Amino acid sequence: MPGAGQGAAARPQRPESPEEPLARELTLIDLIIYGSLETVNIHSVRWSRALRPVFLINFPESRQIRRAFRSIRNTLPDILYVFLLFMFSVLIFSLMALKLFGDRGLKTVEGSPYFTNILEIAFELYVLVTTANSPDVMMPAYDFNWWYSLYFITYIIINTYIFMSVFLAVVYNNYRKHLKNEIRKLAYLKRHKMTEAFNILKVKMDTEFVVKEAPWRQLVKVVAPDISSSHLELLLRICDEGQKGYMDKTNFLRLADLLNIQVVTINVKTHPLETWLPRVYQSAASLLIQKMVRHRIFVWVYDVIILINAIFIALDEKNPLISYAEWLFLSLYIVEILLKLYTYEPRAYFGRKQFWNWFDTLIIMAALVAMVANATIQSARKYNSQQILDIVLILRILRLLRVIVSIQRFRVIVTTLINIGPTMLTFGGLVLVVYYVFAIIGMEVFHGKVLFFDPNFTAPGALVCGNPALEDSIFAQSRYCRNNFNDLASSFIVLVELTVVNHFTLLANGFALVTHQVAKLYFIGFHIVVVILIVNIFIAFILEAFFVAYSLEKSEVETAIEKKIQELGVGVQEEEVQDGKLIDNVDTKDCGFSGDDGDNKRKSLKGLYFRIASKKYRTVDALLQRMFESEIAPEDEGPSLDEILNFSPSDIYPKNPNFENSA
Amino acid sequence: MPGAGQGAAARPQRPESPEEPLARELTLIDLIIYGSLETVNIHSVRWSRALRPVFLINFPESRQIRRAFRSIRNTLPDILYVFLLFMFSVLIFSLMALKLFGDRGLKTVEGSPYFTNILEIAFELYVLVTTANSPDVMMPAYDFNWWYSLYFITYIIINTYIFMSVFLAVVYNNYRKHLKNEIRKLAYLKRHKMTEAFNILKVKMDTEFVVKEAPWRQLVKVVAPDISSSHLELLLRICDEGQKGYMDKTNFLRLADLLNIQVVTINVKTHPLETWLPRVYQSAASLLIQKMVRHRIFVWVYDVIILINAIFIALDEKNPLISYAEWLFLSLYIVEILLKLYTYEPRAYFGRKQFWNWFDTLIIMAALVAMVANATIQSARKYNSQQILDIVLILRILRLLRVIVSIQRFRVIVTTLINIGPTMLTFGGLVLVVYYVFAIIGMEVFHGKVLFFDPNFTAPGALVCGNPALEDSIFAQSRYCRNNFNDLASSFIVLVELTVVNHFTLLANGFALVTHQVAKLYFIGFHIVVVILIVNIFIAFILEAFFVAYSLEKSEVETAIEKKIQELGVGVQEEEVQDGKLIDNVDTKDCGFSGDDGDNKRKSLKGLYFRIASKKYRTVDALLQRMFESEIAPEDEGPSLDEILNFSPSDIYPKNPNFENSA
Repeated sequence: MPGAGQGAAARPQRPESPEEPLARELTLIDLIIYGSLETVNIHSVRWSRALRPVFLINFPESRQIRRAFRSIRNTLPDILYVFLLFMFSVLIFSLMALKLFGDRGLKTVEGSPYFTNILEIAFELYVLVTTANSPDVMMPAYDFNWWYSLYFITYIIINTYIFMSVFLAVVYNNYRKHLKNEIRKLAYLKRHKMTEAFNILKVKMDTEFVVKEAPWRQLVKVVAPDISSSHLELLLRICDEGQKGYMDKTNFLRLADLLNIQVVTINVKTHPLETWLPRVYQSAASLLIQKMVRHRIFVWVYDVIILINAIFIALDEKNPLISYAEWLFLSLYIVEILLKLYTYEPRAYFGRKQFWNWFDTLIIMAALVAMVANATIQSARKYNSQQILDIVLILRILRLLRVIVSIQRFRVIVTTLINIGPTMLTFGGLVLVVYYVFAIIGMEVFHGKVLFFDPNFTAPGALVCGNPALEDSIFAQSRYCRNNFNDLASSFIVLVELTVVNHFTLLANGFALVTHQVAKLYFIGFHIVVVILIVNIFIAFILEAFFVAYSLEKSEVETAIEKKIQELGVGVQEEEVQDGKLIDNVDTKDCGFSGDDGDNKRKSLKGLYFRIASKKYRTVDALLQRMFESEIAPEDEGPSLDEILNFSPSDIYPKNPNFENSA
Repeated sequence: MPGAGQGAAARPQRPESPEEPLARELTLIDLIIYGSLETVNIHSVRWSRALRPVFLINFPESRQIRRAFRSIRNTLPDILYVFLLFMFSVLIFSLMALKLFGDRGLKTVEGSPYFTNILEIAFELYVLVTTANSPDVMMPAYDFNWWYSLYFITYIIINTYIFMSVFLAVVYNNYRKHLKNEIRKLAYLKRHKMTEAFNILKVKMDTEFVVKEAPWRQLVKVVAPDISSSHLELLLRICDEGQKGYMDKTNFLRLADLLNIQVVTINVKTHPLETWLPRVYQSAASLLIQKMVRHRIFVWVYDVIILINAIFIALDEKNPLISYAEWLFLSLYIVEILLKLYTYEPRAYFGRKQFWNWFDTLIIMAALVAMVANATIQSARKYNSQQILDIVLILRILRLLRVIVSIQRFRVIVTTLINIGPTMLTFGGLVLVVYYVFAIIGMEVFHGKVLFFDPNFTAPGALVCGNPALEDSIFAQSRYCRNNFNDLASSFIVLVELTVVNHFTLLANGFALVTHQVAKLYFIGFHIVVVILIVNIFIAFILEAFFVAYSLEKSEVETAIEKKIQELGVGVQEEEVQDGKLIDNVDTKDCGFSGDDGDNKRKSLKGLYFRIASKKYRTVDALLQRMFESEIAPEDEGPSLDEILNFSPSDIYPKNPNFENSA
């Protein structure tokens, strides 16, 4: 629970964001205009509908989306100059194309004149940056003369590859710069609040101000109500090193950092069955089963079963034997889960961080429910529910993902991806907001211009999407009628297709045909905002997440906690602990330790084991924050100067920080 | 001249690369097989042709390409696991697609069954990662049921966006890691060689070993034969701080770094005209002209002329008035160059680093020559040479680029791009080698399968590219006949089109039709090697170059040289010196200084000014090298420990090096 301590200690009161009153005001103005126009019977456009998502950004819980938006806003000035240069380059090339190809009398595949109008050329060349009209845009010139292909290759190298990379570089650089700035601000604020808290709680003792143990305990209970008493004890031992009953400012200030570090309290409980039926659970047969389940071969056997399952899925399902085999596989999986629950402590098996155990169980349970539901419906009505069958199919195939867990190298990549999942949802929110704005504009402009008819229905306009303007267009020939802006869902899907940029030109030209050519501006605007800005920020975010994951080391505070855990003899070696395998280790350790249990220090923490949560489980955000905090630490802390002298030489020369992390 | 000192001191002898003997041997084997088969009249495939570029890599001058290849080879193991995971994901999705859509009886636009064969599905989904068949691949399912679009959107998010970003992250991380390692090795080697040199030249003086001035001078003359004597004097003053006639080891070791720093020797000469015709050149009219040319308005006037020129170019050229205007513009540009040459010292104007002056003059001269040549041909034969006209056109438009120079923000971006130009050529070489290999394979497989006919020539097979298998195919309908593998040039262009990935599927399917479906493997292989590996390395390189440019600071050695230059009073402030404007400053300074010229120290360097070459002119490679050197410096140097203590706290905490450079 990162942020538990920090949240209470440092989270600033959310100030009303500057966008909020503006948006509110604009909507009000729009409503007044709309209302007054409506009274005199003029149907105007409710343009403020496109502004609605600004409210969404201002929901208290969408702090992340707000930050992403701020990051975009901050990036704009820098990207503007690159963009202007890029547009200048496109114009220069357009002028060149006009002069080189305009008078040749060349024709495109559709038979229209090729490269005769400077605005059309600029649009085509802009689209070439998205690669959407390559190589069509080149073919007439290339057919005419081999050498003209060099013009297009030069254009692609400069504008598609170099400029798009420069966009990514600028966005990425800004993303990091502003992220750093924001988190640094937050960290300073935290330091400041902690100092305030110290000043409130401090009492004078001898020559220095200290905080006594009692108010400290009270404080921790207030800021982290769900802390376990053993965890609190551990933190106290770290802050009050000499067990003197008080702590100085330096140690007090560490509290927020200490609370931010996830310490997994492993409560080694006995299996419920052992408590209820000790004789049965400890019998030879039972112990053999437990040993089997813990064995490596058990995992391998189930990997083989999954692979055989995969082959069966790929085979034709019409064969009744194969459809019965599905029941067999399902029951095998259920047996596996039951065996594991028999062997491992259920509460540990379903621990908060046991992603794959949860994944397994949920998939199997859902598949079981869906298959039973389907069988019931089938026997009752002699009819297969298509929706349920689809769900069963997807669940069945998702099960195959389990194989990944068995391979160490894969697990690392997948775990990093799962970790950045929550932050990726932020981008999902951001993209939704932007999509919504464009969808609303698109619906205002293109609503009803393109109609979709059921493929089996032979309406007269079905082949031209109900719009004569699309006759003979590639848009209609490619059966793109369903790509329309008639409702929000369809609009979103068109926008996804535009984000992917392939056939961008086909879509843009299609909609340009049914409205005015000016509509192309809508598509270029969308490309600039979504592909150049947002997709690049998304890529920057993933790059950053992976670099952080690659360059990870333990922080000082973490080292302090770990040292204390080791000192107290209640640690579990992090290296030995693999997710999914955790429970094995704990069990083993438990057996080993129970013999020599007499250490005085360990008494208060008996039966508990701690470990620093593996770095795999940390969110990128928390990691970044920790990194920044370690940087600003020395300005407030005294003893760090001594540590400075103990740095290795490679640490001391921070001239090339860009490379440090890849060492 | 980076690398002058270093080249002599540290460049290791090129060892024969491990690829070389292997390639030679394989070619020999191939030749034997080919010869023996030929004698028994079987025409076999000369497969070693594809290996030929390996020799190219081993040309002594292609060190950079070799390094890039090594970087790719080193990246392979890491990327392999991501790739396997990615392929696993594609297969899982293929299986899902087969189950979800296989039994629906859906048809593609071409009328063929939709998603019924697992291999075809896997190919289509792989292509969807390149975005080349979006949204076509989705349309049948989307038309059938709205919800199925979610399957494709999920697929695109996971495989197209996330996995492709992870590929970039892995490639980028490896690129930096290995680059760092290589350059660090080089730097260590240099340090080692310099120590060896010191041991050879050292003599004992009092308690320590030193190098005397005379052997030092000899050494510098040997390793940098073209060093100016004033530059040598400057370096001596830096190494022999106290002018004692000898230097200790620390100062001696700096030599290589000192020689690596570009010191621009500005020899302030009087204008030749001033020497020949002093009275005319110093006359009131002449001085007025010089003042005018130096004025800011002079630049603005020519910017306006360029813009008017741009409008004229966009206008119709048939109008004789406009075609005469071209002569006017050309003469205006020539007048500009002449005026500048009149005002500024010609040798300074054509200085080695005056990129834009060279650009200007060459463009104008070439345009003049081409226009005169064209006019001559026209008047002689009443006929316009198309090639010359094309060249004139391009030159005319390139002139417009000059406007960029006037805008500071643009200049920075353009200068960075110009700086990384040479290294980008490395990638050009790398891409050429890979393209060559694929082109040779492509020519072996697809040669003669697709024929191109002149558009005006109505041969019977013209519409199906001379191959009946292409009848009714989109390949032929899109008039892609020229995209074939019949000669090396055409093959290269097809490969460029495949690199851009748009219509990847169209091209791949076209060639699959004329050969076997197995040919699709060729296209997937090409995509993996070029798009996933090389394009990502290219992007990583540009990102790195921009990050280095953003995070640049002066090195210690540079600071030492600058301090000495300032001390000797022969410096030109770097801030005041803008490229293209340089000569103004020197002239001004010259006038100011000539009054109080009596400083003893300056006597030996009289008439000369130095400055550290602006960071804009440094190559990325040299920058990286300097960065790494500053990192390993303290291990051999004594006094740096003192400097360590003077670092600011933010320097001392290198915990988050990833962010340091964006501060």
